[in-house]
Amino acid sequence: VRLALYGFGNVGRALARMLAATRAPFTVTALATKGHGAVVDSSGIDLPTILAGTDLPLRKAPPIASLPADVLVEMTPLDPIAGEPALTYLREAITAGMHVVTANKGPIAWAYRELDALAKKNDRMLRFEATLADCLPVFTLRRAALPLAKISAIRGIVSSTNNHILTAAAAGVPFAGALAEAQHLGIAEADPRNDLEGHDAAAKATILANVLMDADLVPEDVTREPIDERAANAARAAAQSGDRVRPVIEIARRGETVAASFGPRRLGPLDPLYAVDDFSMGLIFETDLAGRVVVQLHDPHVDQVAYAILTDLLEISAAGTMPRP
Amino acid sequence: VRLALYGFGNVGRALARMLAATRAPFTVTALATKGHGAVVDSSGIDLPTILAGTDLPLRKAPPIASLPADVLVEMTPLDPIAGEPALTYLREAITAGMHVVTANKGPIAWAYRELDALAKKNDRMLRFEATLADCLPVFTLRRAALPLAKISAIRGIVSSTNNHILTAAAAGVPFAGALAEAQHLGIAEADPRNDLEGHDAAAKATILANVLMDADLVPEDVTREPIDERAANAARAAAQSGDRVRPVIEIARRGETVAASFGPRRLGPLDPLYAVDDFSMGLIFETDLAGRVVVQLHDPHVDQVAYAILTDLLEISAAGTMPRP
Repeated sequence: VRLALYGFGNVGRALARMLAATRAPFTVTALATKGHGAVVDSSGIDLPTILAGTDLPLRKAPPIASLPADVLVEMTPLDPIAGEPALTYLREAITAGMHVVTANKGPIAWAYRELDALAKKNDRMLRFEATLADCLPVFTLRRAALPLAKISAIRGIVSSTNNHILTAAAAGVPFAGALAEAQHLGIAEADPRNDLEGHDAAAKATILANVLMDADLVPEDVTREPIDERAANAARAAAQSGDRVRPVIEIARRGETVAASFGPRRLGPLDPLYAVDDFSMGLIFETDLAGRVVVQLHDPHVDQVAYAILTDLLEISAAGTMPRP
Repeated sequence: VRLALYGFGNVGRALARMLAATRAPFTVTALATKGHGAVVDSSGIDLPTILAGTDLPLRKAPPIASLPADVLVEMTPLDPIAGEPALTYLREAITAGMHVVTANKGPIAWAYRELDALAKKNDRMLRFEATLADCLPVFTLRRAALPLAKISAIRGIVSSTNNHILTAAAAGVPFAGALAEAQHLGIAEADPRNDLEGHDAAAKATILANVLMDADLVPEDVTREPIDERAANAARAAAQSGDRVRPVIEIARRGETVAASFGPRRLGPLDPLYAVDDFSMGLIFETDLAGRVVVQLHDPHVDQVAYAILTDLLEISAAGTMPRP
């Protein structure tokens, strides 16, 4: 299976290292960076050479449709939630007969129904495990472990930065210091308001509602309360009586509609989200056939984003679907 | 896909109700009970009629190889861990060209390597999600969400009865009363020593070690400490300082070998197993590529055992593998 890697930042480089180190059945035939050019080689690019920092021969990547690849792996830098140019890349690739894997939540939050329909029409696979919470099993879990089950509600923590800030606050660290640390570690979004005001969480809640609960939300439909000084103070106070304040998304079906919210919530120790500490993430699914199922990913790093992409690629490979027409 | 249901106790009846209620693509063509006869109908058995309690026409089920079915669903009454007659049924079915799904942990704990090899040789699928912890995603999770990842350690709670006893003890309920309640609810094994002395947990730890960590254990290799009056007292004492005592299996690779144990363990609130309360179950996987992944199933009922079997059946159906030779 031939891959075109679009975007070669921290995630792209982690994926390249993982592809080089594992026996995954893939050949990278195209690679495009933001500011350091591109390379296309239908016989396969040597990833260790690229990772060592060689100059790339092309100033710009050729048009997506012309690339000798079966899958576009879309990892371009995050735009502020809205989804471009990633959305355009995904449309181009699917229309050109490529499967697509994206790490960008914008296109899925804003245009899941359109992209899903386009992929089905072209008999291509659309995968986006990394958009939600690194390699926390979400969409893979749905397909493999929750088939036919109806999900009536989802509750969870999907914002590492906010959870880190409230975890630090519980230990007495001031709000500004905890935010600065998340930024220093490269975990926070470029504009911290995307995290703190819940835009990032709202995009993720939208994806969960639309993909797993057949809703038709846009991120603005998600009610948001900020993670701020006041929430940090509440976290510190809660910790003194053994509770935690965590940044929680809540999605629930109410009759014909699905409602979603984000905000700081106080939890006791027997809540499955209590132990989702610091940069960890977790989700609780309320279902009919499977009961209440919980997944958590603890202390993830950038490798866990790359691994989510790898699991998507392995599913495409295992499906043995036809190469590009 | 044609199913032969072997065993029609609580789990078998729950599965039959689920098959009748969902649009799962299956026809039941054979059904065998322990004491109430059997029925074979290659055009499909009407499950609501059987569930209503009709007499079955055959005194005994015909030989497995003669059944007009593509999959044997093995749900015969639990023998004390050892695995017979379930193991014989599974061997017969695979050799006759059937896929097999079992809810019995005995055969998988004692003979996984043999059955796996036999299934591979006959190009048949062997599935056993329900053996571990109802529909807690374990083997589905491994295949879908943890491909290529190496699992170096597993820690978890897979014994509902023991966890219920220690949860009740933490709330001040005496040991004997909590055990009696689990038996009354039909959760405890027929012989309570299977739960309390850790035989059931040891069988499950063996399955996890052999299937997910490529070990070659038998249940006797698992070190066991009992859940008894003393553990219940420790649970009550721990609760007073905000901790919990839980029945924990621990499996870890040490060099070339894999070691496994079971016993009561004291946990603090930030341990992901702390909130796995009462009849709930949960596992923590330590992996290389995916980091630390946690799954939990809260407050399961018999329907969640049936659903685990259904997910196995759906995977067999989706694989589109050839019908019986």
